[in-house]
Amino acid sequence: MTLDKIYHAAYVLKEAARTTDMIAAPDLCPGGNVWLKTENLQVTGSFKLRGAYYKISQLSDEEKKRGIIACSAGNHAQGVALAAAKNKIPAIICIPDSAPISKIEATRSYGVEVELVKGSYDDAYARAVELQAEQGRTFIHPFNDENVIAGQGTIGLEILDQMPDVEAVIVPVGGGGLISGVAFAIKSLRPQCKVYGVQAAGAASMLKSVQKGKIMTLPAVSTFADGIAVKQPGDLTFELVRRYVDGIVDVTEDEVASAILALMERQKLVAEGAGAVSIAAALYNKIDLAGKKTCCLLSGGNIDVNILSRVITRGLVMGGRNASLTIALIDKPGQLEGVSHIISSHGGNVVSVHYDHSDPNMSINSCFLTLGLETRDHAQLEEIKGALSENGFEIVAGPTVNGNCKA
Amino acid sequence: MTLDKIYHAAYVLKEAARTTDMIAAPDLCPGGNVWLKTENLQVTGSFKLRGAYYKISQLSDEEKKRGIIACSAGNHAQGVALAAAKNKIPAIICIPDSAPISKIEATRSYGVEVELVKGSYDDAYARAVELQAEQGRTFIHPFNDENVIAGQGTIGLEILDQMPDVEAVIVPVGGGGLISGVAFAIKSLRPQCKVYGVQAAGAASMLKSVQKGKIMTLPAVSTFADGIAVKQPGDLTFELVRRYVDGIVDVTEDEVASAILALMERQKLVAEGAGAVSIAAALYNKIDLAGKKTCCLLSGGNIDVNILSRVITRGLVMGGRNASLTIALIDKPGQLEGVSHIISSHGGNVVSVHYDHSDPNMSINSCFLTLGLETRDHAQLEEIKGALSENGFEIVAGPTVNGNCKA
Repeated sequence: MTLDKIYHAAYVLKEAARTTDMIAAPDLCPGGNVWLKTENLQVTGSFKLRGAYYKISQLSDEEKKRGIIACSAGNHAQGVALAAAKNKIPAIICIPDSAPISKIEATRSYGVEVELVKGSYDDAYARAVELQAEQGRTFIHPFNDENVIAGQGTIGLEILDQMPDVEAVIVPVGGGGLISGVAFAIKSLRPQCKVYGVQAAGAASMLKSVQKGKIMTLPAVSTFADGIAVKQPGDLTFELVRRYVDGIVDVTEDEVASAILALMERQKLVAEGAGAVSIAAALYNKIDLAGKKTCCLLSGGNIDVNILSRVITRGLVMGGRNASLTIALIDKPGQLEGVSHIISSHGGNVVSVHYDHSDPNMSINSCFLTLGLETRDHAQLEEIKGALSENGFEIVAGPTVNGNCKA
Repeated sequence: MTLDKIYHAAYVLKEAARTTDMIAAPDLCPGGNVWLKTENLQVTGSFKLRGAYYKISQLSDEEKKRGIIACSAGNHAQGVALAAAKNKIPAIICIPDSAPISKIEATRSYGVEVELVKGSYDDAYARAVELQAEQGRTFIHPFNDENVIAGQGTIGLEILDQMPDVEAVIVPVGGGGLISGVAFAIKSLRPQCKVYGVQAAGAASMLKSVQKGKIMTLPAVSTFADGIAVKQPGDLTFELVRRYVDGIVDVTEDEVASAILALMERQKLVAEGAGAVSIAAALYNKIDLAGKKTCCLLSGGNIDVNILSRVITRGLVMGGRNASLTIALIDKPGQLEGVSHIISSHGGNVVSVHYDHSDPNMSINSCFLTLGLETRDHAQLEEIKGALSENGFEIVAGPTVNGNCKA
């Protein structure tokens, strides 16, 4: 890797990518000096366009004629599709048929050929390799490729341009292509700036590899941050991360959900799980940023709205602002009124009621009341739960919150 | 109003406001050439900071010492609060106690005095007028003020700077402060560019006033776009709109919900109802934009997340992507299986099931099955409904969609 290559990528990308805005986020982390590099506002909704476009632009005429092939269920697919369409290169994108319809349609909309492959990512990958061998197409790897890494590295140049005094940069990590390019650019030009990576705890293959000092393969990955659910880092990216990255941390699913909610409420930005892990790390103090002017790379915003709806709900529960309480009642008149009175007198807002006395686990003269509540925060919720208990109402199920949420 | 004043406001605002990005939205309106001026990414989450800040900066030292007062439940409150805090001017903001907790807390967070007034906006306004008279404070009007209008007009300058060949600008309209400033700036510099206003159908006071040729007062307003729920335009804004605006249209609540959903999915931006009406007008062809390079002003993003959740749900229903179906079943084994089979064989995804045979309206051996479905579009949903009917299942309730939704 050379800085030259990244500068060249930046020049080439002028025709396809946006210089995304750097936006202050003063309310996101109390006491922090955090800014957001908004690659969710990049064309195609993620940074992936940069690497794919630069890679494809550097193919020989012969390679361009034979066409390209890629495999992805998400952002890389859209990046490759747009790059291929703009460069008029025949492209096939293999997508597992389990991928969300919205992502498949978005890829198709750029006018490339999409081959839906039965099964998971691994099946789609196997099919892509097969097609590559048969047809002599160039395979566009999502991260383990020098030109792809150089394309992503252009974000590092933009960060230094927009924030010359930056002291820490936090970057989401899946296969490691993004952080490899960004860390190389930043450490080459401003070595005193720290660069940290963040992974989802359920897919921390780079973290584990760095800890063990060699490339490790996870048997399985589990995270809703599908953009960084990678079982094994690349050899190029692993070496670059070892040399240029100051540390890698991980975040839980609930922390990511809280970060997505905070970005929506305080910054008016939609982030996908993979895009928000950097903000989650800052929000939950996974990295010591005290006094440091920090840039969190918000790498993408392609999240299914149905999942987003669930994330909002979960984020509200995490913050003590939504809760579902199940209360065991004796089946006699006035009980519902009693519970309602306690909740409203403590400022809670009932949004749903479910009353069930057919549960065979209950004794005959009792029943379950399940209430959906809107509350201000954990303190108010605890107040309501305390008042219910004091008045003899038994709470049999309430919200579960893991970790040390402070959002 | 003079251009000079708007240029001066732009100079003063350099210390407080951001030059928000202009972002292409190629997929938002099929065939359209639409760009978004993203004032939802403005400091405080809306354009209101501009007018409030410039107005406050122009007060005399004597006026600054006596302090200011304002009345708002939303964006204006936050704009005034930040401007007062930055200029170290004592400020009281009267907010109706029915306002969302999140907006009250956001206003307080800037360190100004908040007075919660029992009742509605009108009660808070009355209290603000009372305090103004008692204490000699300057009242900062949300729209009917020349300096406030000049502050909002700076957006017009930025639009022309970022998009010199713009042919149409679409602007949300409540009291008319924003469109007055923007239209004045744009028509002064580029008179061939069209400027259109958009109101919520449930609060179309400016539209009605322009139609009647005089200022009209609505008896009541009803819209979830609370930022533009204004009963009566100002006299200054009414005159400027009459002189400089090419037309005003209105949009329904469902159209606004669809626009908010489209902005989240395709642009990764969170918009409030008032901020999204301009996009709704473009999306639903309320204005003839064929071939015109168009800027939609996305004026703000301060929406309560609980409301946002409901908007997502409603937007999905409007687009045929979520539906709730209630089916009357005969209470015998295998019925649920039959329905499930029909739905899954047509590619629908069941996300919730509610089975009720205690409804006293039903005959004894029948019951209601209510299903929550995820579908691809209206066509797929209709296919499923058709197949259910063909197989003898009676659909007693389904989704209701108003208007000519095409999102």
